[in-house]
Amino acid sequence: MAGPPTFIAACRRQPVPYTPVWFMRQAGRHLPEYRRLRGEGSIMEAVRRPDLAAELTLQPVRRYGVDAAVLFSDIMVPLTGFGVEVAPGTGPVTNKPFREKADLDRLRVEEHPYVAEAVQLVVKESPVPVIGFAGGPFTLASYLVEGGPSQNYLSTKALMWRDPALWGALADRLASIALASLKAQVEAGAAAVQIFESWGGALSPAAYRRFVLPALRVVLDGLAPLAVPRIVFGVSAGELLALFAEAGADVVGVDWRVPLDVARQRTGPGVALQGNLDPAACLAPWEVLAEEARAVLAVAPETGHVFNLGHGVLPSTDPGQLARLVELVHAETAR
Amino acid sequence: MAGPPTFIAACRRQPVPYTPVWFMRQAGRHLPEYRRLRGEGSIMEAVRRPDLAAELTLQPVRRYGVDAAVLFSDIMVPLTGFGVEVAPGTGPVTNKPFREKADLDRLRVEEHPYVAEAVQLVVKESPVPVIGFAGGPFTLASYLVEGGPSQNYLSTKALMWRDPALWGALADRLASIALASLKAQVEAGAAAVQIFESWGGALSPAAYRRFVLPALRVVLDGLAPLAVPRIVFGVSAGELLALFAEAGADVVGVDWRVPLDVARQRTGPGVALQGNLDPAACLAPWEVLAEEARAVLAVAPETGHVFNLGHGVLPSTDPGQLARLVELVHAETAR
Repeated sequence: MAGPPTFIAACRRQPVPYTPVWFMRQAGRHLPEYRRLRGEGSIMEAVRRPDLAAELTLQPVRRYGVDAAVLFSDIMVPLTGFGVEVAPGTGPVTNKPFREKADLDRLRVEEHPYVAEAVQLVVKESPVPVIGFAGGPFTLASYLVEGGPSQNYLSTKALMWRDPALWGALADRLASIALASLKAQVEAGAAAVQIFESWGGALSPAAYRRFVLPALRVVLDGLAPLAVPRIVFGVSAGELLALFAEAGADVVGVDWRVPLDVARQRTGPGVALQGNLDPAACLAPWEVLAEEARAVLAVAPETGHVFNLGHGVLPSTDPGQLARLVELVHAETAR
Repeated sequence: MAGPPTFIAACRRQPVPYTPVWFMRQAGRHLPEYRRLRGEGSIMEAVRRPDLAAELTLQPVRRYGVDAAVLFSDIMVPLTGFGVEVAPGTGPVTNKPFREKADLDRLRVEEHPYVAEAVQLVVKESPVPVIGFAGGPFTLASYLVEGGPSQNYLSTKALMWRDPALWGALADRLASIALASLKAQVEAGAAAVQIFESWGGALSPAAYRRFVLPALRVVLDGLAPLAVPRIVFGVSAGELLALFAEAGADVVGVDWRVPLDVARQRTGPGVALQGNLDPAACLAPWEVLAEEARAVLAVAPETGHVFNLGHGVLPSTDPGQLARLVELVHAETAR
């Protein structure tokens, strides 16, 4: 077939033969082949081995026939010099959180050639486009300021409100770092990028607009010359969907809380939508899962829909369920 | 002044001399007088002492001049017989989670006369109306099924999808229990009630409508003859606001993610709105907090607004900030 791959065409809101599918965290613990290969080692160590990262990226592509490969990596990789570790079962942690201006010195654009190498290896093998990714400004900042995962992001919000200048410098720096990482991934062959602004939904839309949107725009604008689809996704971010579109996303990722037709009203028709099955539905009996998937498709836009979960694949998910889900979406949307 | 108290009038969308204010968790750890009186003992023990519960309820009314007193109690009180404890720093936990039909036997309408006694004591002393409360069906069920607080509510959703009949029986039972508790509180003198459907926002609107709304309606309908304002509140529940209104809420509580004018579009004009300052803003410098509070007032409905936070008062909040906040709202909305 001539023309762009199905996933890329859908991101551009072009007609597609069927709705493309991929899953956030499709390369992950729910796969027995992933657990065998990764073992119990640190994710950062695995990420630093291009052959291993490439293989982990390709596993779900082979098993599921999904329409995109998402690089096995971590949003904290570009912040290695800050002193962040990813603790198994916990997530990103640092014992030297961001507190003052001097901490900006630990935040520099870093080069991690192993990331580009992994992308190159995947591109060579993958029958489908490769998605690169980075963390959004609020999400990255939250780990640095809180020192780890958080429920309420109190220190992050306190910094934002107490010292808007320092906050702005932090957000800008993180935008530059994320942009550099995404550019490197695209130059190595990634055909699309996703910005995981996972925790941005902790802010009101007014606060997000004022304190984070300028930095998000820096990332999105900086990517524009590369002409790859730019996806922005957040959890509990229903009130930010219009802002993500306004900032320049080509595709807005939607969690399962917001029906796609409602999301469409908020973003307007100028972006594609990605999502949005509740990942917990994959733990339900197949007939229920099928019904839930059909309900997503029923309100999805006619053009410009990338099927995905509304958040990452849960570790307890049965791979057989995801395999049937890919088949169902492909079959029921065949045009 | 003749007519109902300001808080009640606002709940009924009647004209008021100023916008009334109360704070979720206003009777709580952020108050030094609360910490002195409560010490480190179990919340369930404190709840069982009407004199203590009444005093804790009245503390913030005296200190802040808020327009409503919310009973010091816990949503798990009516489920004592199930075997739930409230672990300090953790929340409600049970080592015998809800698993099967036989577990319904541990869920009966219980009598807890100390709750009514506490309400009576407060009503005698309080210059403002007293709010009684209960947990919403999904929120209560989540603690019983998960065995404690949860991030993703996977077991709860799995039960819902795997065995809708058992789920329905559980939700109905919890509705009866919550209703009985609320009725007892109103009979003892509570002038309004709030249903904390705090975690309902973990469900898509379609799932909430199908699996929970009927039970929520049982609670709201059962309260109708008592003619007290019924408030329904949830966190990250922006997509459920219309459902809360549809189910019969008189007042819809809104978290800080949804601007009140947007919330108004979703609920329609037939309900009052309560909220919705980000509790984290109370940790910001006063000028910032004042600006954030004014931003809430700027988009609040002209009639039918009860000022509140978008979730409970954070334990690290300075009481001085809340005192100034009450003054600000009263002063700037004086008509």
